[in-house]
Amino acid sequence: METSTGKPYVVGMDIGGTNTVMGIVDQQGQILATDAVKTGQYTQVEEYVETVCAKLIPMIEKHGGVENFRGMGIGAPNANYYRGTIEQAPNLPWKGIVPLAAMFKEKVGLPVAMTNDANAAALGEMTYGVARGMKNFIMITLGTGVGSGIVVNGQLVYGHDGFAGELGHVCVDRSSEARLCGCGRRGCLETYCSATGVARTTREALAISAEPSLLRELPIEKITSKDVYDAAVKGDKLALEIFQRTGEILGRAITDFIVFSSPEAIVLFGGLTKAGEYIMNPIRETVDAHVMPIFKGKTRILLSELKEADAAVLGASALGWEAK
Amino acid sequence: METSTGKPYVVGMDIGGTNTVMGIVDQQGQILATDAVKTGQYTQVEEYVETVCAKLIPMIEKHGGVENFRGMGIGAPNANYYRGTIEQAPNLPWKGIVPLAAMFKEKVGLPVAMTNDANAAALGEMTYGVARGMKNFIMITLGTGVGSGIVVNGQLVYGHDGFAGELGHVCVDRSSEARLCGCGRRGCLETYCSATGVARTTREALAISAEPSLLRELPIEKITSKDVYDAAVKGDKLALEIFQRTGEILGRAITDFIVFSSPEAIVLFGGLTKAGEYIMNPIRETVDAHVMPIFKGKTRILLSELKEADAAVLGASALGWEAK
Repeated sequence: METSTGKPYVVGMDIGGTNTVMGIVDQQGQILATDAVKTGQYTQVEEYVETVCAKLIPMIEKHGGVENFRGMGIGAPNANYYRGTIEQAPNLPWKGIVPLAAMFKEKVGLPVAMTNDANAAALGEMTYGVARGMKNFIMITLGTGVGSGIVVNGQLVYGHDGFAGELGHVCVDRSSEARLCGCGRRGCLETYCSATGVARTTREALAISAEPSLLRELPIEKITSKDVYDAAVKGDKLALEIFQRTGEILGRAITDFIVFSSPEAIVLFGGLTKAGEYIMNPIRETVDAHVMPIFKGKTRILLSELKEADAAVLGASALGWEAK
Repeated sequence: METSTGKPYVVGMDIGGTNTVMGIVDQQGQILATDAVKTGQYTQVEEYVETVCAKLIPMIEKHGGVENFRGMGIGAPNANYYRGTIEQAPNLPWKGIVPLAAMFKEKVGLPVAMTNDANAAALGEMTYGVARGMKNFIMITLGTGVGSGIVVNGQLVYGHDGFAGELGHVCVDRSSEARLCGCGRRGCLETYCSATGVARTTREALAISAEPSLLRELPIEKITSKDVYDAAVKGDKLALEIFQRTGEILGRAITDFIVFSSPEAIVLFGGLTKAGEYIMNPIRETVDAHVMPIFKGKTRILLSELKEADAAVLGASALGWEAK
């Protein structure tokens, strides 16, 4: 966190397919003000930037103007850190390559840095959360998909093209019957260990086995990972088995991540982590049983400490401290 | 390469189970002098250090003394970069944790840095070889085992404990019949894609199939990857299939490495790479067919440019330029 300039605030902005949330954040990670814009309503990116700025600039003025701000950080899907662009994002209304960092820099008058949402989450965790002080850790976000942000030697890993850290797309099943992933390949971690992956596992399990389960009372196509959690709390055996199996797959993948960068911790975040010990226990047991002996017991498996509602803005804001 | 002090030389030393080779290296990567000591003859590490220094110090004197030297780099199995120690190395005569960097620093009077052999190879490639100028690449050494050195943002990845980069031990087969690895687990990449892994694949293939092969003329327990290469050159179908299968396994593993750190290149080194296009073609084809679309065509698969005889000393010497 580069706060040596003494400027007390940064702007953090999280761009999602539905909402864009802007926040003013201080050095302690307090969100002092927020506002939001409906991303999907603006097919013209210029109009979108205008609308965001019409709300954001008065917020900045209320906190003493740009001279009180170190920078602005943006978290967005398919964001390229090196180029400050959003590239071919399937869930955003703007097609092609959008130079969003430059557009906001011009309008707002602050240095702007941009990265994808999972990288922003990692920065947020390192700046304000459970990874404070860590130089080597991996953030894994278990939401609709599986994202990741990898920190090595205190720096985010962007790779040569700015897109590194796609751990949701390591292959965990190389058989020809492996699940088809949104990326076009088969067997990606994301198809098993995201919230949607868990729902898919549940539908398969209900179809294959005849075991009684509370989950059979729900319309099968609408089952969510939350339903599986609710059933697990009630002791439903099938629900417990689904978390066990999901945790084992993620745990095995984590043993491979550990031999790569030997992180001090794996920090888990996102919807699926609400399953708590139902998923954390099998992950920890699997890592412990299968990690390479030289790394045994060295890497902690932690839950994020950031509130889910704040994490995206905090993560983006963390990038604001190092914007150039 | 930190050469701003203007000192023209470094010492590079490669410690293997059989031999220790010491070399004087200049800024262009020329090895100006070498000598060697039989590592295995010295069960007392103090005696070993004495013997090495009795040869090394006169070499340094001949090149103008320590004032002409920037530092000394050591590549050794199970070396810990952070602590300058060799820890529990199964192939070296000294047990426990040996503070070798400090011992040489005291005797030689130069700053000493130490890392494992695969990391040293990566530094050598970055300083003098095919990875010159690259900030993000992965070195994979295909010898008796499979080692790796990972470079991110221009720095070697050591992880929080100094042991990161054990890509020979990612799991490529999670079935219960997967091959047992020297690390105690099953299915490690190294059990398939090292020179010994290829020999094992060959013995299995000869036992399972009845296909005619030149390899059947050899004593089955003594077959090496070199024999498989010789047979492949003669068009032997089984030998070609073995390289094809080995290249596919390595190629699939590389697609997972790419989503982690998005390297500009994967640099391959070691005995197995002598199989040339017999192994490189299936690796490249598999990576191209299975890599995540966002990375397609972006990562080059290259062969090391360093001579195998020189690489270990050059790699270790590269570390000497940054010794503290």
